Amino acid sequence: MASDTRPVVSNRRTGEFTRWSLTLIPTTREAPNDAETPSHVLLHRAGFIRQVGAGIYDYLPLAWRVLSRISTIIREEMNAAGGSELLMPALEPFELFEGTKRDEDYGDNLFRVKDRKGRMNALAPTHEEVITDLMKGAVSSYKQLPLTLYQIQTKFRDEARPRAGLLRCREFIMKDAYSFHMNVEGAGGLNDSYDAMYKAYSNTFTRCGLDFTPVEAESGPIGGSASHEFMVNCASGEDTILKCPVSGYAANVEKCEIGDRGPWTLDAAPTGELTEVHTPNLPGIDEVGKVMKVKPDRMLKTLVFAVTGAVAGNTAAVLPKWVLAVVRGDRDVNEGKVKKLGGCAVTLAPEKEAKAAGFAIGYVSPRAVNTADTLLLIDSEVAQGGFWATGSDKADHHVKHFNWTRDIGAVLKDTAKVMVGDLRNAVAGDPSPKAPGAVLETARGIEVGHIFKLGTKYSDAMGLQIQDETLGKRSVIMGCYGIGVSRTMAATVEQNHDENGIVWPAAIAPYHVLITMMKPDDARQKEAAGKLGCMLVGEGFDVLLDDRDERPGVKFKDADLVGIPIRITLGDKALDAGGVEFKLRKDAMGKAEVVPMDEVVAKCLASLNG
Amino acid sequence: MASDTRPVVSNRRTGEFTRWSLTLIPTTREAPNDAETPSHVLLHRAGFIRQVGAGIYDYLPLAWRVLSRISTIIREEMNAAGGSELLMPALEPFELFEGTKRDEDYGDNLFRVKDRKGRMNALAPTHEEVITDLMKGAVSSYKQLPLTLYQIQTKFRDEARPRAGLLRCREFIMKDAYSFHMNVEGAGGLNDSYDAMYKAYSNTFTRCGLDFTPVEAESGPIGGSASHEFMVNCASGEDTILKCPVSGYAANVEKCEIGDRGPWTLDAAPTGELTEVHTPNLPGIDEVGKVMKVKPDRMLKTLVFAVTGAVAGNTAAVLPKWVLAVVRGDRDVNEGKVKKLGGCAVTLAPEKEAKAAGFAIGYVSPRAVNTADTLLLIDSEVAQGGFWATGSDKADHHVKHFNWTRDIGAVLKDTAKVMVGDLRNAVAGDPSPKAPGAVLETARGIEVGHIFKLGTKYSDAMGLQIQDETLGKRSVIMGCYGIGVSRTMAATVEQNHDENGIVWPAAIAPYHVLITMMKPDDARQKEAAGKLGCMLVGEGFDVLLDDRDERPGVKFKDADLVGIPIRITLGDKALDAGGVEFKLRKDAMGKAEVVPMDEVVAKCLASLNG
Repeated sequence: MASDTRPVVSNRRTGEFTRWSLTLIPTTREAPNDAETPSHVLLHRAGFIRQVGAGIYDYLPLAWRVLSRISTIIREEMNAAGGSELLMPALEPFELFEGTKRDEDYGDNLFRVKDRKGRMNALAPTHEEVITDLMKGAVSSYKQLPLTLYQIQTKFRDEARPRAGLLRCREFIMKDAYSFHMNVEGAGGLNDSYDAMYKAYSNTFTRCGLDFTPVEAESGPIGGSASHEFMVNCASGEDTILKCPVSGYAANVEKCEIGDRGPWTLDAAPTGELTEVHTPNLPGIDEVGKVMKVKPDRMLKTLVFAVTGAVAGNTAAVLPKWVLAVVRGDRDVNEGKVKKLGGCAVTLAPEKEAKAAGFAIGYVSPRAVNTADTLLLIDSEVAQGGFWATGSDKADHHVKHFNWTRDIGAVLKDTAKVMVGDLRNAVAGDPSPKAPGAVLETARGIEVGHIFKLGTKYSDAMGLQIQDETLGKRSVIMGCYGIGVSRTMAATVEQNHDENGIVWPAAIAPYHVLITMMKPDDARQKEAAGKLGCMLVGEGFDVLLDDRDERPGVKFKDADLVGIPIRITLGDKALDAGGVEFKLRKDAMGKAEVVPMDEVVAKCLASLNG
Repeated sequence: MASDTRPVVSNRRTGEFTRWSLTLIPTTREAPNDAETPSHVLLHRAGFIRQVGAGIYDYLPLAWRVLSRISTIIREEMNAAGGSELLMPALEPFELFEGTKRDEDYGDNLFRVKDRKGRMNALAPTHEEVITDLMKGAVSSYKQLPLTLYQIQTKFRDEARPRAGLLRCREFIMKDAYSFHMNVEGAGGLNDSYDAMYKAYSNTFTRCGLDFTPVEAESGPIGGSASHEFMVNCASGEDTILKCPVSGYAANVEKCEIGDRGPWTLDAAPTGELTEVHTPNLPGIDEVGKVMKVKPDRMLKTLVFAVTGAVAGNTAAVLPKWVLAVVRGDRDVNEGKVKKLGGCAVTLAPEKEAKAAGFAIGYVSPRAVNTADTLLLIDSEVAQGGFWATGSDKADHHVKHFNWTRDIGAVLKDTAKVMVGDLRNAVAGDPSPKAPGAVLETARGIEVGHIFKLGTKYSDAMGLQIQDETLGKRSVIMGCYGIGVSRTMAATVEQNHDENGIVWPAAIAPYHVLITMMKPDDARQKEAAGKLGCMLVGEGFDVLLDDRDERPGVKFKDADLVGIPIRITLGDKALDAGGVEFKLRKDAMGKAEVVPMDEVVAKCLASLNG
């Protein structure tokens, strides 16, 4: 059969040719009512997406082409990193959550589907359970590992507030990969695959033409530097990144360490008598400060955590029941740092239980350390003398002139009950943890990828144990690795646009070249369009021909909006001179130059290589 | 940026190289408990699929590769037919069904998802509503049509009885296309696109290597030959196809016409007195026949239909309320033919209402024509004299010696109340409707594609009207076109297997060549595998290398099971002679031949071209 051999013996060129008049590119001047972010506005206006429901979108032909290009790059890099592609289903029987209880973790974010027989299913938000269950039946021996499997698939999360177009959706496209190992270290171990994925992610986003930063993220259960987020650098991003300009260290807010903040002391003279102020019904620390006439940076913020267990390495015989974490009023407590300093797994204390234990929630001060089974953690920034305002440990009141020595001096001597250290989120200007003398800077980013060492969390919960070299059974060690595919498209637009529209990086542009016919019915222009199309497609360029019966002004505005990298215009003047008008989308201000017909292909090649 | 130019200037070869030891191909000797069809058994045993829930499957790496190849062929043919690819969401807000009421048509087959805000969504079983709604906002003028859009997407149907592996699933992969037109005839009209789709479907299934038959299917609202199913010819298929070997006519059971069955008459002498027989609680006509000692082909089967409206072209002032359709006891009433002969839209009468109107459901005879507002339709096969048994029109009884003239002669003269014609499903041996003298033959098939002229059903229901050439508003005319992608994979296996496993057609095989190493650790075999792999991948072949530490017997069994078309074995004997063992999977009985190393590529090319 001749047809059989087509994919085998021919080297298919990628070049494709599309007439605008025969596809669907519904450009519009109107942005959606709720659209604020540039990618939401421009992807809608340029005819890439249409909303179907809250956080649910149609990807129209141009968007589909961009998504396909991103997916191709991801596949090449995943395959190069040793991954095999598969496809798991969207419907996930609820029984799979029995061991992991992730249905509870996801809560209302999980779409639930009861089928005609009354059985409950989830629309899978990710596939750890499904793939762990698959592996239980499919592998039995260490000989079959390591293994990396991935899919590019539609995911579902019932977000409470879908927003910003494709940046936070309820149905979206994700690449998720899972790796399986007998060991963490050594050949074929988790660390090897994690490093290969880190490289594959860097390659992927580089090839997509994105400016991005890999940042350290909160560690997984294995500890160490076991998680990284890949952030597209972008002022409109919803995540904050901290970077050290000297060492290159970068981390997200949850993870970022702070360097040495200098000496601290709890030993200082009082600034005055403890003075109570009536502060009822105030929503936050700023309002309390206004009533008290104290700036938030002279106030102590004291959060109460309930202890849920010990962290690995804590050998204390008895754990506290409660942890108080004290930071400056204008700072945010970092839960990961509370865990680390306190040596306890914690969760923000439920108000009812905390009140029952005697904590005046909303008005707690460090003096509450006197409550039984309570550990006091103090951020080094507030372990200083001087004036402090804080809660009064009774409802509706705060106090001025709190003093560590005078007010809780007796407890301060008990080093098992009080600790000082780093407890808060890093901010710009904090000392770098990696380069003495350097200070951290902040930037905004959009998270497009996340890689993670899972360890045996899922294999333990679901019983994925296989035979090791000694014929014993061992839990399989796992990693997981995600890329938001549709989000990557949106992030690219956030980073690549001007006031007139999108400016696609060539590698993921829906087409490489846009040919605009000034007069679609003109015989000479038709001939030129056909000839140019053939030449360019023959060289592997994807070409969009604007052959619409529209005014030139409309076409030029749409060309700016849609953002194809190379723009060729067929008009009488240039054709009279034996050429065409040539312009790059990224040179917004530049004038088109006339390029002779037989030099167009070379010019296009040079433009994309340049 | 160098990376930008990769997809543009390089002619990427498709050749890929995979080591069995690094991917997931969990072959097994055990078939699933409920597996009966070959594709279900073999796709599971060969490690292509695993069940996740009822009618829900993981597509493992080999299956994903086959699905990707089928999808590539579909995309090429859809693009050649003028289609543009897009992607619509799986979640479909219920409001979209307001106009079409298809949520009621689908009933329990529709998966319903209530979100966190209490809004109801469907998991889309197809996308007519979504795309019609999209078009309402995106096109406004005839200048933007015709337009053909398609997607390859996961579909959801909560089948009551998912079965046969991928042949009837609750979550499956489908290509669905929709075309939009101002006219049925002429350039850019529906008929043009329908014909282009017919050709694209024929090309697609031919290129996939399938033996298939396009059959006429029940017409859409436009009438004429407005629907075709594409059936893979296969004895295990669940659909029956009727074919005329002389004219080439082929149709499904619902659609198939029957040629002239010769003269009929209702005028004949009685064979005896009407005799009642007590026939209570018998489940079917066969059991009734046994009790009465009458063969089903001498019994009259009378079905009661309720009239729901007139069909196009019926200008009768008053419609009947009920239609009785009488066929031979061993035949099946064809509802489409009932509509056509009676000129009424009908539905099988709800038992309760029919009983209230006086019909003894289960025991109805042609004499029930005496009920008010009833039309009697008689299949020409039973418009004959001789012995007939039939119902007695009262519960629990049948009668023998029914005679048309004696028993309902008075009514027979009223041509508005009684009609004779073709009412039943065709069967093998019936006269061909297209070639006088020829008889129909039956065959079994698996439906893998269906094309359909929709007309204005959805645009009317949802208000998709656009400006025509005269500036008036007109409803858009639509067509829709589906291919079961995952079902096509399963149908291919049904048609291409032997007792040892799958025999993939080269065009959609997961790999073209399987290289089996007898001794994976042997230096000479390693070198040969590397060299062969390079040569073959360089020519665009996809190569799977079985490098597992397993016995040769296990590898050969797995090779048969998995079904890669070309099999090369690296063993000492052939390598001593400067060659490799070469065999085609389809030559199950053939012996491997030794091919010199430097002739292997040419041999592979010739094998796939042959």
